[in-house]
Amino acid sequence: MNQGSSLHGEFSSISPAEFFYRNRQMAGFGNPSQAVYSTVRELVENSIDACEEARRQPDVRVSIDEERSGIVRIMVSDNGTGVPYGEVPNAFARVLYGDKFTARQRRGTFGLGVTMAVLYGQITTDSPVIVLTQTSHTTGRSYQLLIDIKNNQPVILSDESHEREGPGTEVTIRLKGDLNRSRNRVYDYLQLTTVASPHANMELVINGSSVMRMGRWHQMLPAPTLASKPHPHGADLELLRRLVADTGERSLHDFLVESFQRMGTRTATRFLKFLSINPRQVVNTLSRGDLSRLSSALRSYDGLGRPDGKCLSPIGKDAFLTSVESVFAPSALTYGSRGPTEWSGNAFIVEGVAAIGTGARAADVPTLYRFANRVPLLYDSGEDVLTRMLKKVNWVKYGVGSTTPVSIFLHLCSTRIPFKAAGKQSIASLPEIEHEALSLLRELGRNLKKTLKGDERSVRDAQKKREFDKAMKQVAQFSAELAECDAIPSTAELVHRLFEVGYHV
Amino acid sequence: MNQGSSLHGEFSSISPAEFFYRNRQMAGFGNPSQAVYSTVRELVENSIDACEEARRQPDVRVSIDEERSGIVRIMVSDNGTGVPYGEVPNAFARVLYGDKFTARQRRGTFGLGVTMAVLYGQITTDSPVIVLTQTSHTTGRSYQLLIDIKNNQPVILSDESHEREGPGTEVTIRLKGDLNRSRNRVYDYLQLTTVASPHANMELVINGSSVMRMGRWHQMLPAPTLASKPHPHGADLELLRRLVADTGERSLHDFLVESFQRMGTRTATRFLKFLSINPRQVVNTLSRGDLSRLSSALRSYDGLGRPDGKCLSPIGKDAFLTSVESVFAPSALTYGSRGPTEWSGNAFIVEGVAAIGTGARAADVPTLYRFANRVPLLYDSGEDVLTRMLKKVNWVKYGVGSTTPVSIFLHLCSTRIPFKAAGKQSIASLPEIEHEALSLLRELGRNLKKTLKGDERSVRDAQKKREFDKAMKQVAQFSAELAECDAIPSTAELVHRLFEVGYHV
Repeated sequence: MNQGSSLHGEFSSISPAEFFYRNRQMAGFGNPSQAVYSTVRELVENSIDACEEARRQPDVRVSIDEERSGIVRIMVSDNGTGVPYGEVPNAFARVLYGDKFTARQRRGTFGLGVTMAVLYGQITTDSPVIVLTQTSHTTGRSYQLLIDIKNNQPVILSDESHEREGPGTEVTIRLKGDLNRSRNRVYDYLQLTTVASPHANMELVINGSSVMRMGRWHQMLPAPTLASKPHPHGADLELLRRLVADTGERSLHDFLVESFQRMGTRTATRFLKFLSINPRQVVNTLSRGDLSRLSSALRSYDGLGRPDGKCLSPIGKDAFLTSVESVFAPSALTYGSRGPTEWSGNAFIVEGVAAIGTGARAADVPTLYRFANRVPLLYDSGEDVLTRMLKKVNWVKYGVGSTTPVSIFLHLCSTRIPFKAAGKQSIASLPEIEHEALSLLRELGRNLKKTLKGDERSVRDAQKKREFDKAMKQVAQFSAELAECDAIPSTAELVHRLFEVGYHV
Repeated sequence: MNQGSSLHGEFSSISPAEFFYRNRQMAGFGNPSQAVYSTVRELVENSIDACEEARRQPDVRVSIDEERSGIVRIMVSDNGTGVPYGEVPNAFARVLYGDKFTARQRRGTFGLGVTMAVLYGQITTDSPVIVLTQTSHTTGRSYQLLIDIKNNQPVILSDESHEREGPGTEVTIRLKGDLNRSRNRVYDYLQLTTVASPHANMELVINGSSVMRMGRWHQMLPAPTLASKPHPHGADLELLRRLVADTGERSLHDFLVESFQRMGTRTATRFLKFLSINPRQVVNTLSRGDLSRLSSALRSYDGLGRPDGKCLSPIGKDAFLTSVESVFAPSALTYGSRGPTEWSGNAFIVEGVAAIGTGARAADVPTLYRFANRVPLLYDSGEDVLTRMLKKVNWVKYGVGSTTPVSIFLHLCSTRIPFKAAGKQSIASLPEIEHEALSLLRELGRNLKKTLKGDERSVRDAQKKREFDKAMKQVAQFSAELAECDAIPSTAELVHRLFEVGYHV
């Protein structure tokens, strides 16, 4: 090509599908046990998102069958919106494609996860993904898809009309997987999913037997999240240029008010005065230097309100307390929340529950359960910002020790979770998140202290309550079976009222 | 678009540049301090690779200037091959583009790192990357480049002829950076780079003052690595299909021999007999089922030789011992190595040095320095496979304790390092790597034990030696300055011979 090229290898471009094919461990597909877990997780995330879009209580069923040693078939079905038929091939067989690129809280985020599962299945078992989906007011369709990895394009093996009982999606992926080593993780994942999405019902079927069915601890569907305008603190030059390009011939003042949240007329006027820029200047006549100055000023300007929380969906006090209590039956629990605030313009909330007397082992540091955008995080806790903050707190000061086990459930929700890797297992340390998480943990600690100081009797009560709780659940299940009723009624509230466990907030 | 789409957000595809722009923390650009470190690291990796390609001793100079508070200019220059002029725009301003996609050990690997630094600089300071480069037998050229992030395409602001003293490349990036908080990391990184690349000379200049200049502890350039054929254990279906497509009308037997390493005529015959497939069948007439069966058989076949090590470049016993001794002046040290072996068909070697009496604090577990393909890893040690294996060893059994500090330097080299994230800070846990690392650590432990049991005198000797070593280095530097000679001669070997420190292997 030219004089220097013989010294180099050949230069070339690779597609994102090729990149993640080569580096699948970055996306959570590093080994057959992690692959089972990640496939379940990615499909379940999408399913619950799709149900919430449809404003329906999620009923999600995960079936895992070991077809022969080392080969596993995973099927996840939901009662969600269904996937628009024209989008199915790209949504399932094209990396970095999706409807997830909006500034509001979603479980899935990258348009990467499910395609990674499809890709991994394809290269380990040569099987296509099978997608049955039905949107409302239509009969359903069924697809068999592979990925052209070099070109990052879907390959459609079949595309047929297919009847389904109602709207929803059912996805089947065959892959090389280690069911034995992943079974407990999958169970924990689904159980904790009902903690973070207390309105969802999860069922797990392994080799044809129902292994778990739980959830819907709380009836209320979370309010739908709304995509928000960007916060001025996120206005890096790239974003600012894009906004200007979309705006055209507007005055700088009007541009600011229309493009950003927390930029009312008065704030915009004050801000531009502070910057000494003429508010009537037309925005697409700004020089590069002006834009650069505008960007740094926006990103560091102090006089702005808190970010809009309507793009976020925290679990909320009632639902979070109820779900932790239903799953873990603690003797006492307390809720706290911080925010909304922002990191680089991305709104976030941290909320948490501290629970006393749960199954976890007693120690000087509580057992931590991490959640991001209602998704439990089970791997790579060591370098996670939430774990790091937990360890920073002197828990002994708050009465935590070797006598009573304490668990902390922390949920970070944000329009963008700063995951450390595409496998979405741990959260990067950003000062804003560190600060809020630490404050929240200390608040939970202070509340714990009051309770732990409290009567010894509560420990015995908790023991009794746990046994009662277990018995009641069995009674409920038997009754449901007798009545040939599919839904098992929740007994948590009943038991709770009987024992009047102390909430401290 | 169709009935279901109103329920969803808009579906779309995003470019890899856009993906990493949104998730820059995954690529090591999560905050201004990490950004300085990652920029230096990515540029230095490329520089040393380019010098080795040119078969020249690397002289790499890193200059960092704080232009105004929070804005940093980083310039890295080398005496390498220079970048082929036609490739400069894509190589520096297009994500997932490069000459790094070959099956041999290189420092850089993804065609991602430097473009991430360019992207980060652009969105935080609005500045283009400046590239001066000269390939041999040409005058150089100078470029100013930006990235069109939405389309992942380079934008060429200028492209001019530019004289340079000789072949090599000089890259300048302005970015939002925290110099104070990154200074020590950068220093450590460059110092440890001289440990892993003992033939390289590194200089660090901060705000115009030379802060460090060290290296070339060992004169020998490592042998050039050769791209190897794939190992049969890496033959997933995607790879197998690609190889078949490249081959055309060959018999299965010849296809195996020509496409894979460790597949001689006899091995191929034995393997096909074991599989009961006709060795004369033409390879592109194989059915999907046949290919699938062939793939799983290749991946699990036991009767194969060790993988080819010519694609790898371990530091090697002499060079590794010399560099650790030169930088850390321990009282005793020992080297060990395991491999070549493979994970999923990727050849790898683990080698290590254990050093007694270095600066690190004495403890029950040695201080660990991690290296991957001759690159020091400084972040995210907690979840790294090497750290995990270090903690698995009962070091007290080997005499490690609170009296004498011990450091372990572990180097994993491979045609593919299974990094956990695109920022290349920690290595995923794969059973093959776990096994070799653990065996190596135990071997180093046994060697340590012999030494630690040994005479107390050696501790005093080491103290003396360290002082002597320091003095000799100063003498050498003064002499060099007097002689107006640029290169400071190495004194390590001289001091070593004077004290005859015991090597135990």
